Amino acid sequence: MPVEIERKYLVTSDAWREDMAGTPYRQGYMCVSELATVRVRQAGERAFLTIKGATAGLSRAEFEYEIPVPDAEIMLRDHCTKPLIEKTRYEVPFGGKIWTVDVFDAANAGLIVAEVELTHADEQVQIPPWAGREVTDDPRYRNSSLISDPMNGSDQ
Amino acid sequence: MPVEIERKYLVTSDAWREDMAGTPYRQGYMCVSELATVRVRQAGERAFLTIKGATAGLSRAEFEYEIPVPDAEIMLRDHCTKPLIEKTRYEVPFGGKIWTVDVFDAANAGLIVAEVELTHADEQVQIPPWAGREVTDDPRYRNSSLISDPMNGSDQ
Repeated sequence: MPVEIERKYLVTSDAWREDMAGTPYRQGYMCVSELATVRVRQAGERAFLTIKGATAGLSRAEFEYEIPVPDAEIMLRDHCTKPLIEKTRYEVPFGGKIWTVDVFDAANAGLIVAEVELTHADEQVQIPPWAGREVTDDPRYRNSSLISDPMNGSDQ
Repeated sequence: MPVEIERKYLVTSDAWREDMAGTPYRQGYMCVSELATVRVRQAGERAFLTIKGATAGLSRAEFEYEIPVPDAEIMLRDHCTKPLIEKTRYEVPFGGKIWTVDVFDAANAGLIVAEVELTHADEQVQIPPWAGREVTDDPRYRNSSLISDPMNGSDQ
């Protein structure tokens, strides 16, 4: 079973951002329940439908399928809870891993979150100096929560 | 936009069933909301993820993607509301159209429903003699309702 293991941190400085080009993301949720979260994401010129299971510690079952962009545009418009999440994603190399830095916009403008994917749940990773408080277990920082309860920089 | 237009009837006799081979279906729902219904279906040796929008008269937006059978098996086991829908589907030619006849099993054993897809909302179709009451607009006969409120032959 495909499983996602990740750690998530708030970003506290701009030191990671060296003229890097990001990819615009727009995403929404068709459902968020204890059994499954169904997400539609438009990422640059591509689009994906993603099913995530309930979180078990750091791990979470995840299935992702690429779908046509026009389908995603209709689903984001008609079949997802509003407001949508809008953010720009940067891939930042640090300590032999690729960190994903999401700079949020719209309702969550000011929020910047960094994530790293682990290969197993107890892998030790080097934490970058621009990463602040760990929020892996804080449900308020799930993208699915950021729709109903937006966060901005001042909430951090 | 892909749109589904269909009419649905209860089946009142076995006259349609001439030694026909059916396909076993197993399906479940990850969410049923006003915005979207997300269904996982295993149909014989194939599997599909289907998003349906809210119903507008006879029409309904529908997006369907084929997915790997092992993914569907996990989703049906862990990420769908129980009980699942189990049925055998038959494709029955009548009056120049293909009618889909679903013979339900498990919690809905005894229920048999026939559906025909229309090319436009006011297309006239010939109704087979084995089709009884029309239930197109009866929400109790939606597969997504048959999970929470099963129907069996005696409810008809």
